[in-house]
Amino acid sequence: MMTLEDCQALDHNDALRALREQFDLPVGVIYLDGNSLGALPSRTAARVQEVVKSEWGCGLIESWNKAGWFDLPNRIGDKIGQLIGARSGEVVATDSTSINLYKVLHAAMSMCRDKASTQRVVLSERSNFPTDLYIAQSLCQQLGFDLVLVEAQEIDTRLAVGDVGILMLTHVNYRTGAMHDMKHVSDAAHRAGAYTVWDLAHSAGAVPVDVHGDGADYAVGCGYKYLNGGPGAPAFVWVHPDHASRFWQPLSGWWGHAHPFQFETAYQPAPNTQRYLCGTQPMLSLAALECGVDSLLAAGPQAMQALREKSIQLTDLFIHLVKHHCTELGVAVVTPQEPAQRGSQVSLTHTAASPSDVPSAYAIVQALIARGVIGDYRAGDPQAPAHSSAAQNLMRFGFTPAYIGFVDVWHAVAHLREVLVKEAWKHSNFMQRHAVT
Amino acid sequence: MMTLEDCQALDHNDALRALREQFDLPVGVIYLDGNSLGALPSRTAARVQEVVKSEWGCGLIESWNKAGWFDLPNRIGDKIGQLIGARSGEVVATDSTSINLYKVLHAAMSMCRDKASTQRVVLSERSNFPTDLYIAQSLCQQLGFDLVLVEAQEIDTRLAVGDVGILMLTHVNYRTGAMHDMKHVSDAAHRAGAYTVWDLAHSAGAVPVDVHGDGADYAVGCGYKYLNGGPGAPAFVWVHPDHASRFWQPLSGWWGHAHPFQFETAYQPAPNTQRYLCGTQPMLSLAALECGVDSLLAAGPQAMQALREKSIQLTDLFIHLVKHHCTELGVAVVTPQEPAQRGSQVSLTHTAASPSDVPSAYAIVQALIARGVIGDYRAGDPQAPAHSSAAQNLMRFGFTPAYIGFVDVWHAVAHLREVLVKEAWKHSNFMQRHAVT
Repeated sequence: MMTLEDCQALDHNDALRALREQFDLPVGVIYLDGNSLGALPSRTAARVQEVVKSEWGCGLIESWNKAGWFDLPNRIGDKIGQLIGARSGEVVATDSTSINLYKVLHAAMSMCRDKASTQRVVLSERSNFPTDLYIAQSLCQQLGFDLVLVEAQEIDTRLAVGDVGILMLTHVNYRTGAMHDMKHVSDAAHRAGAYTVWDLAHSAGAVPVDVHGDGADYAVGCGYKYLNGGPGAPAFVWVHPDHASRFWQPLSGWWGHAHPFQFETAYQPAPNTQRYLCGTQPMLSLAALECGVDSLLAAGPQAMQALREKSIQLTDLFIHLVKHHCTELGVAVVTPQEPAQRGSQVSLTHTAASPSDVPSAYAIVQALIARGVIGDYRAGDPQAPAHSSAAQNLMRFGFTPAYIGFVDVWHAVAHLREVLVKEAWKHSNFMQRHAVT
Repeated sequence: MMTLEDCQALDHNDALRALREQFDLPVGVIYLDGNSLGALPSRTAARVQEVVKSEWGCGLIESWNKAGWFDLPNRIGDKIGQLIGARSGEVVATDSTSINLYKVLHAAMSMCRDKASTQRVVLSERSNFPTDLYIAQSLCQQLGFDLVLVEAQEIDTRLAVGDVGILMLTHVNYRTGAMHDMKHVSDAAHRAGAYTVWDLAHSAGAVPVDVHGDGADYAVGCGYKYLNGGPGAPAFVWVHPDHASRFWQPLSGWWGHAHPFQFETAYQPAPNTQRYLCGTQPMLSLAALECGVDSLLAAGPQAMQALREKSIQLTDLFIHLVKHHCTELGVAVVTPQEPAQRGSQVSLTHTAASPSDVPSAYAIVQALIARGVIGDYRAGDPQAPAHSSAAQNLMRFGFTPAYIGFVDVWHAVAHLREVLVKEAWKHSNFMQRHAVT
């Protein structure tokens, strides 16, 4: 049984403790929502101010070259690439995750059509992030594919049917924090003749990813979660070099042209990942994204390994404390307790003490926020099958190793227990059963 | 013949002179490239800093509601709407111009297919901005339309053929500054049974636009030119209310969903222009865009009329001075000299004094920039027909009425003449002809 003193000792011995100084977090807040919006790196404000006042205000139009604006999507892309196992020149930072998914899914569908394949199913997970499913629905309708949604444990079986052309998954589930074994799943997809499209929104900056080694064909990801790029920061896109020059993506804007400054009338896509750029990119937001990525690279050459090690310690600790202190108060851990099967997030359910108490998980999260412990709530989809994790009402807690400490975890669980005890008072049935006083 | 003293008097009596104080321009620079990247409004730096430090750094995830991030695309859209004749709720600020064009062009093509029309031509101008043509090429290829490019004066004739489903034009030409009569052209398109898609990149904030009165079906535009939103600022999209709820646009991301926070598995588009949003938007860049738009609205309730009046005076003055001082030095005005036929930009050509002097327009622009007079150069497309304006090498000068004064114009032309005279020395033929000493 871990104590507060144990947590203090863990913080004291934390090799990544200095990283925390690179973030500006409000006093009195335990921020467990970095899986939704990463915290503010200390360097960002000054850097954005430099872009606004110096590069834009003084440099004006010349900053496109002199301040390196034109290279920025690639420069940041290369840095993100270091976190996901990509090589230089393979990643660009641009647009939103949804739009980047549209690009790569369209390209993957083109590859299926090109090889005259009859494999016209896009297979995904029912509890995939909704925007990924929406984009897939649009493209399936446009290009004559079928979107099939299954539970995670049904993927292998469904691949065996033989009609799947594309397996589109989010590596770490946004609701449960469950993580796919990317290599295992990709290999199964490839054996079934399918391409893999991975959404790394909850992976990049949180867990080590090796897009080359783990069999990804395409990948996209988010800039404002574990990459700490700021609200709505541009996203990123990676394409396996074998595919990068083979197809148009349909969002054929000027920045993806082979010769963007020759202003030619006919579109000619750049021969590399550059073609995944479309229109002009928001430089202020890109500059902030670069600071966020830099804040992770500051963890050293083995940044992701070091961050992952601490992330597992943090989530292990949270699970341990929640099970010990909150199980009897109706809380259960949804996230896999085997570290290799989860990302940097732990999700909990709360069993209502009475039928009238259905939204209790929501109320608990609100009570925690009022105490400065910021997690969030995700309602279950009422249309999802009851056995699907998509149906559950969840409390989500993200543990960003760069700025969360072990004492934070201890206090978060202490607050959770206090909230639960106070909530329990409201329910006489519960009081009778547990005699909480 | 206008003198420097005349220009000083015009500045003195300029009703919009106070607006200039709302911009931070470098000392010693005459910035005539606001048609490419608008100048920095004085309020922007502090506002962006507030978003970074206070809204993101302190408010963290709660700022999505408490700081109004979720409403920002619509709030800015409503402000832009005031500048283009749109009503509240019709415009959203989001993504890039290229991506917004993809959305509306796809929607317009869907309308053509829906009415089982055989009109499957997208008609545009050969010298339209290349990215617009690239996007149209992609969608024509995907959806079975043909893209036909003509010169501006050939549009009416081509519409009369009867096969045009969509007329896609940029209101003010990015190269020549020539402006279409939006109402005349839209009416002709509608008589021919075609929908109109207008790109207002060089119009919004520069000339009054009345999307309702002038017969637009769809419109997109740019945030970083005359709207002064900063490098790569998000763009905007407007849809006529008759069309807004009729079709999916294919970039069906979560923010365009009817219930974005219910995380439903199936996409259901919002019933209004909200459906033209896709993924999460870059808040830092959006905040800067709002400051830029506010800087124009500061010109008062009749902002665009007041700005337009001064814009015409500025461009008239520039044309007058160039013709008087630079004609004999090989410079000609390409932009229409009738104010109603141009935007807020004047483009010039320079006839090379010798065949070896082909890129002289480029050299002149570089020499001007070295003197602090910032315009830009656009090479002609060598593949364009010789009679097309798309073939000409151009020097472009934008006159943003919010921060350019009449004395600026006078000095710009004085510098241009000095550069031309020095250049002329290099060419003995020219010297012999003109006896410049």
